[in-house]
Amino acid sequence: MLWSGWGDPGKAVTLPPAVLTLLEQALGVQPADGTPVPIAQVRLPESELDPAVATELAMFVGPPNLHTHHDARVKHAAGRSTADLLRLRSGDAPDAPDAVVLPGTHNEVVGVLGACARRHVAVVPFAGGTSVVGGLAARREGFGGLVTLDVRRLTGLVSLDTESLTATFRAGTLAVEAEELLGAKGFTLGHFPQSYEYARLGGFAATRSAGQASAGYGRFDEMVLALTVATPEGTLELGRGPASAAGPDLRQLVLGSEGAFGVITELTLRVHPAPQKSVYQGWRFGSFAEGATALRELAQRGPLPTVLRLSDEAETGVDAVLHGREAGGCLVIAGYDGVPGGTGVDALAAAGADALAAAGGACLDDAVGETWAEGRFDAPYLRDALLGAGAIAETCETATNWSNLVALKESVTAALVSSLSAQDTPPLVMCHVSHVYPTGASLYFTVVAKAADDPVAQWAVAKTAATDAIVAGGGTITHHHGVGAEHRPWLEREIGPLGVEVLRAVKARLDPAGILNPGVLVP
Amino acid sequence: MLWSGWGDPGKAVTLPPAVLTLLEQALGVQPADGTPVPIAQVRLPESELDPAVATELAMFVGPPNLHTHHDARVKHAAGRSTADLLRLRSGDAPDAPDAVVLPGTHNEVVGVLGACARRHVAVVPFAGGTSVVGGLAARREGFGGLVTLDVRRLTGLVSLDTESLTATFRAGTLAVEAEELLGAKGFTLGHFPQSYEYARLGGFAATRSAGQASAGYGRFDEMVLALTVATPEGTLELGRGPASAAGPDLRQLVLGSEGAFGVITELTLRVHPAPQKSVYQGWRFGSFAEGATALRELAQRGPLPTVLRLSDEAETGVDAVLHGREAGGCLVIAGYDGVPGGTGVDALAAAGADALAAAGGACLDDAVGETWAEGRFDAPYLRDALLGAGAIAETCETATNWSNLVALKESVTAALVSSLSAQDTPPLVMCHVSHVYPTGASLYFTVVAKAADDPVAQWAVAKTAATDAIVAGGGTITHHHGVGAEHRPWLEREIGPLGVEVLRAVKARLDPAGILNPGVLVP
Repeated sequence: MLWSGWGDPGKAVTLPPAVLTLLEQALGVQPADGTPVPIAQVRLPESELDPAVATELAMFVGPPNLHTHHDARVKHAAGRSTADLLRLRSGDAPDAPDAVVLPGTHNEVVGVLGACARRHVAVVPFAGGTSVVGGLAARREGFGGLVTLDVRRLTGLVSLDTESLTATFRAGTLAVEAEELLGAKGFTLGHFPQSYEYARLGGFAATRSAGQASAGYGRFDEMVLALTVATPEGTLELGRGPASAAGPDLRQLVLGSEGAFGVITELTLRVHPAPQKSVYQGWRFGSFAEGATALRELAQRGPLPTVLRLSDEAETGVDAVLHGREAGGCLVIAGYDGVPGGTGVDALAAAGADALAAAGGACLDDAVGETWAEGRFDAPYLRDALLGAGAIAETCETATNWSNLVALKESVTAALVSSLSAQDTPPLVMCHVSHVYPTGASLYFTVVAKAADDPVAQWAVAKTAATDAIVAGGGTITHHHGVGAEHRPWLEREIGPLGVEVLRAVKARLDPAGILNPGVLVP
Repeated sequence: MLWSGWGDPGKAVTLPPAVLTLLEQALGVQPADGTPVPIAQVRLPESELDPAVATELAMFVGPPNLHTHHDARVKHAAGRSTADLLRLRSGDAPDAPDAVVLPGTHNEVVGVLGACARRHVAVVPFAGGTSVVGGLAARREGFGGLVTLDVRRLTGLVSLDTESLTATFRAGTLAVEAEELLGAKGFTLGHFPQSYEYARLGGFAATRSAGQASAGYGRFDEMVLALTVATPEGTLELGRGPASAAGPDLRQLVLGSEGAFGVITELTLRVHPAPQKSVYQGWRFGSFAEGATALRELAQRGPLPTVLRLSDEAETGVDAVLHGREAGGCLVIAGYDGVPGGTGVDALAAAGADALAAAGGACLDDAVGETWAEGRFDAPYLRDALLGAGAIAETCETATNWSNLVALKESVTAALVSSLSAQDTPPLVMCHVSHVYPTGASLYFTVVAKAADDPVAQWAVAKTAATDAIVAGGGTITHHHGVGAEHRPWLEREIGPLGVEVLRAVKARLDPAGILNPGVLVP
């Protein structure tokens, strides 16, 4: 992962002249040289870790698995939000850990957490580092140092039950690696979020990730059958069998706990037969509301595609510019996986096409769907290019009931436009629906504007306005990005003051010293 | 509800001579006169409720809504487990409350809980009283009295969102009433557990109920989108939108909390278009294992019926005797709901029939499926007749992965047979699968034996053996009956000692005085 941006530096995007012109004309973005500082020039906080503690941690994991050098600290200093990247690019890494610890077993994780609790050292669990909501921005104050616990050595498929369709993985397994291991045996998880190429399974569970194929395969939290969690107070092993009435479902406290209650070290997941073939179709609807109605009908009555997305007019227009297509209307992408022994993919796609046509859609050229599928993990590269060109680009998201979807989209868009316009940087706000449920859907906003002098502060103001609008409009503060440090001020409005007290009580029991990701999740 | 047994006294069953003969020949059950004592002769514990507290509670709910008379206490004294009924029939009601409180609003519930916390009075939430695991058997010791909080005045449909397919109900609404209210508008919850005719919605949520149509409509915990909960420490309002990543899902702490954390007063549920027609088919498979394989294929690959059940050889044989049918093999019931605007019921049933036939099933006469559907809520009446005839009859249940299903069925059956045979009452043990998932299924055991001199102790020994076998065999201690007082000793083996500590921490935060259903759920 590029330390100052996204992914593979070899895949960096150069903005085409048409886009640069559009940025200048529509948003007033002036050509800029936004090259990041060299990594060696990044300013790190002075380490507060007692060398004796470092020695103790090295005993648990072995000296080669404790890193304190500059580059390791920079590479674990931040997630991948736009604010994170803007700070890194300018050479700031205020949240960098003093050391990176790489345990290789569950027991090593337990040992590290116990030692850190005794020594009052803050611990940031790290499972890919792709958070876009400050999930790694732990508070240092009051601790005797801060270390990152990277799970990347806890990898591999532990077992596969082909009759029950379950697989047990170590939690540091890369999503890509998990798909390779399963694919070799004819199975898939079906979990492909934007972070797919860099995220690790435990992170998906800790943040309630949702992938692009959630219509077909579900959210990640729905895939988790069992979990093993290391906490400073010992180990939790949760989940027996396919369903249970044995009291509250404690797995659901670990899912979404964002490293604040413990470190997930192993997880058992539902798997599916790998598709033999996938088909992606593009459709055009007259308006966002018409497209939303079509998606709702598929989500409630079927047939439900594996992937189902709707872009609003603005996003459809930009997509048309990027791909040299005719603009107009609202783009729907419907993807279908053909499963061995199930209905063939062509029959599935035909049934979906009938439903989309009946709902008023016009089928587009085959290339439209295929282009989406080919570029499905590329948006973060485009952001890096925009940041380098003097723009800011960031996203925010929510979910709500179908009956509230269009109204919430409008109020959040208005809040973003109003907030950024008031800063003399009127934005382009695009929106899409990428996750559908019988009762509602997600809304995902992408915002591009001219960067102000302090772009971090500029976006913080806009994000506050958007989140206030989400709460006021009845949406959830996050559908799949998680809480992190960024949404934490709004969590009480989501779950109420007594809900916050419940979280605090659970944290106090599992992490009495409060060392785990302090300042993230729990208000 | 009949105070000493199940349901409507007018529907009481008389055992046919063939069954009495079978009981005598197969199990040694001698004809007995097991008529319950008259209700007036039931022995109640002396009330420990301070009259001043009763007066205070009456202020919150109004004097007509505080009942302290003999019959009200008896009727709230126990759930509907066989042990509960055996005790009631013999005139014992050791767990009877001192008073029954009937709040009419959420705020009245909050007021009652606050007063009881201050006065250290134990509170048993009551939402139909159909628990079969001692869910109402709260501990009296150490409290200044014990009151039952019956939610039966908190009824009605608050709102219906026909676009999002959600309905908000007050939690004391009877399931039957909820179906009537929704049915009038063309919708259904699709939740039909054995307790359907007497249970209330809040109880389904508090116990993670699963209904007979769970294959089609899901478990009750999957239907719950939002909850309002009154606790001694205030109100929880949880659930925004169709899905969220806003931290741990605290609804999942309330689901399954069995009245130990608070009282659910309102809930928002997913609804479905009401079926226009339902079809039930009977199938015969050669063995339980063959039938289980067929169910697994439907659960994993589809088409999935709305109702899907498999009886083992013993249950199929008894069913044949009861209905005068030819015995042999293992009975499968497959039910299909035809949804307006969706695939027609006949097409669904035909697709299901193709799959069941391909899996080796033989289709039975139409009457077999229809007979099941007609008698689907009648089993508890049969139990009352068996208890009166000198037998004991009780059930226990679990769930496990498909790859473990047959082995677990065999080990639990062996434990039951061994335990009861050692008491000189060799049992008939029947088993069925009534809930299927992609990764596994439930196992439901029905046990009939000659009643020993102390039938409560007799069953307690057998139940201990069965639950030990379930835990040792990798099953969950309960798939849908809940924990109650009965499974509480095994909860630590399900969720581990640290899981128990998490439950205790949550309870301590929401119910610091420990007044809510003490002795139920939390070890």
